[in-house]
Amino acid sequence: MSALGLLGEIADVGRDRVRGGYSRHAFDPAEGELRTWFTEQAERRGLDVETDRNGNLWAWWGTPGPDALVTGSHLDSVPGGGAFDGPLGVVSALDAVAALRAEGFRPRKPLAVLVFAEEEGGRFGVPCLGSRLLTGSIDADRARALRDPDGVTLAEAASRAGFEPERFGRDDLALSRIGTFLELHVEQGKGLIDLGSPLAVGSTVIAHGRWRFSFSGQGNHAGATVMGDRHDPMIPAAAVVAAARRVASKVEGARATVGRLVPRPGGTNVIASTVDVWLDARVTGEDRVRPLVDEIAGIAGEAAAEEGCAVQLSEESYSGTVAFDAGLRGRLGDLLGGVPELPTGAGHDAAILSGHVRAGMLYVRNPTGISHAPEEFAEDDDVERGARALADVLRNLST
Amino acid sequence: MSALGLLGEIADVGRDRVRGGYSRHAFDPAEGELRTWFTEQAERRGLDVETDRNGNLWAWWGTPGPDALVTGSHLDSVPGGGAFDGPLGVVSALDAVAALRAEGFRPRKPLAVLVFAEEEGGRFGVPCLGSRLLTGSIDADRARALRDPDGVTLAEAASRAGFEPERFGRDDLALSRIGTFLELHVEQGKGLIDLGSPLAVGSTVIAHGRWRFSFSGQGNHAGATVMGDRHDPMIPAAAVVAAARRVASKVEGARATVGRLVPRPGGTNVIASTVDVWLDARVTGEDRVRPLVDEIAGIAGEAAAEEGCAVQLSEESYSGTVAFDAGLRGRLGDLLGGVPELPTGAGHDAAILSGHVRAGMLYVRNPTGISHAPEEFAEDDDVERGARALADVLRNLST
Repeated sequence: MSALGLLGEIADVGRDRVRGGYSRHAFDPAEGELRTWFTEQAERRGLDVETDRNGNLWAWWGTPGPDALVTGSHLDSVPGGGAFDGPLGVVSALDAVAALRAEGFRPRKPLAVLVFAEEEGGRFGVPCLGSRLLTGSIDADRARALRDPDGVTLAEAASRAGFEPERFGRDDLALSRIGTFLELHVEQGKGLIDLGSPLAVGSTVIAHGRWRFSFSGQGNHAGATVMGDRHDPMIPAAAVVAAARRVASKVEGARATVGRLVPRPGGTNVIASTVDVWLDARVTGEDRVRPLVDEIAGIAGEAAAEEGCAVQLSEESYSGTVAFDAGLRGRLGDLLGGVPELPTGAGHDAAILSGHVRAGMLYVRNPTGISHAPEEFAEDDDVERGARALADVLRNLST
Repeated sequence: MSALGLLGEIADVGRDRVRGGYSRHAFDPAEGELRTWFTEQAERRGLDVETDRNGNLWAWWGTPGPDALVTGSHLDSVPGGGAFDGPLGVVSALDAVAALRAEGFRPRKPLAVLVFAEEEGGRFGVPCLGSRLLTGSIDADRARALRDPDGVTLAEAASRAGFEPERFGRDDLALSRIGTFLELHVEQGKGLIDLGSPLAVGSTVIAHGRWRFSFSGQGNHAGATVMGDRHDPMIPAAAVVAAARRVASKVEGARATVGRLVPRPGGTNVIASTVDVWLDARVTGEDRVRPLVDEIAGIAGEAAAEEGCAVQLSEESYSGTVAFDAGLRGRLGDLLGGVPELPTGAGHDAAILSGHVRAGMLYVRNPTGISHAPEEFAEDDDVERGARALADVLRNLST
């Protein structure tokens, strides 16, 4: 079955009736269904599937071993996300493996399809959690204690889903097996529309991170509390939204977003007692993200003080600028007939791995230029081009 | 069992582990448990319990009939609410009935304890839903189509909980039985602290309502979408929060609150596609609420246009200023030895009923001055005073 056919098979898994699109989060039933489906599909293609200590799925062609050529992506989504972000890289990998098998190809190196857990951080807040745990770039205790919006810890959710969170943490054995990691992914902006190309080789990932502002005030009755008696944390929370826009707009290459904001208790007739605001901030070039966040935090602190509210700021994740392996980039470009290189503002597991192994990316054109939303798309022809390109690259790199 | 003992019995029902306090919403399991508990307690006191067409519970002492003396309140809560708002009036009524029975009193009029459904609008957005349906002040079709945050309609939720939503609507028979309705309620501001009194008679309820601003923009990737390409509905949503504060602060007697704001899809790395913002607005005196909302709506419209977002504004509920029956107020004041009168900024079922029957309220002191939050409180002595006062009033008014 082709990449398109595989995407069709999972088209009904994890649909979000409230938000639209898909909500497939780590260790929830929809994600579990996708893991089972992936395992069956991989085994049908003669691959041996194993789950590593951190809940990442590996499907091996040949004996697991060092200098393996590994490709894959993730199956989880943002809340209300599109059909391609993540799954496209997984189905293209399965398709490419089947194509290589069909032509009688025998790789000289071990080859694996890898599915990372919780890439979006859609449930527990930290993106690329599977690759961060694998590489030790997040402390395992901190990861286990992360909570989802219902207060369930990662450790609890993983245990309930049959995983062993006590084994989470840096996995040198798994890491030592990867010679090269290559991730195919739908493009998330307009880069390939502008370039007029169906495919690109990833060049850089801009520095990015996530911060949480937790404001606390005094919950109270919306009708019985006069304006002068209020300590309403929504006031500084709204100031962060406005400040993120204002500050980022004046810094070249900066993006700052508040897409998640949770007032508690969240009643219409209730002055909130706490508000959590998540800030996603990114800036091209090195070392300019934290100063941007500092400026927004200064505004947040003043607004909180003026309202008689407290504020706590925590950095939930940070990733510096990543440039993918130059040799690999050149080889991919040559192999694929000179497809262009493209930087991205989106984070990826390949970028987390790039500090540890040779890593690279292939992007497939997204004609809407929209991602993390139901409008995310890839044309059938481009999906097929991507899978063929991946097969060509795997053939070349594993011989 | 006293009012205090009854409160103790339900102290563990519907606790909210995430928000703190209680979340007891219409037709959810906690509220169902409270209905069962109320029915048992009422029957133990020799009352006959029936559910009216709109899901309100009536516990009758004597044959249901015209000119009944009815007292009660509600058992649902705001999300993360306190223990007293609603239940205090219900347990005080049960306590008062038991006290009157114990002294051998026989009322000359039918007497009933009434528990209204969904007073807070905590699940379906419209406050005093049970009394609005009963009195026909909300259209039944509109009510049935109201949705909770998970998209479940009131009709669906009611059906699942064993009610008959097709029967919802103005209930002239039930209404015709009420001669006088008296609601005892915990005070929700600092009025009784300032007056130094444990009890007060309700004078007026200020005009108030709820409005929903629905902003829609373009959901997209927080990293791949440059600032100039955005149509982010969080920007005008934050403008509403700031405008509500600014506009209400300059109008004497006004209160405007945004306590509920829901970005969708709500991912940290996702520019929202839609944001719903609920505005609670109230102003003392008549007819000044809608002009206040209009001013905020003007600011919202400008902010939305500037961001390339659309905005829809809908009025979810509105209640004009209510003055409780002057004769009843006077009689209550005399009976209770000259307790003071108190206006309130909080809405109540008694205020909805006051357009149809003789209605009044008794308030019990709240030493924190905080309501709709776990800090809401009443001293044991004041709870007992309130129940005794209610018994005195029922004895007097039903003879």
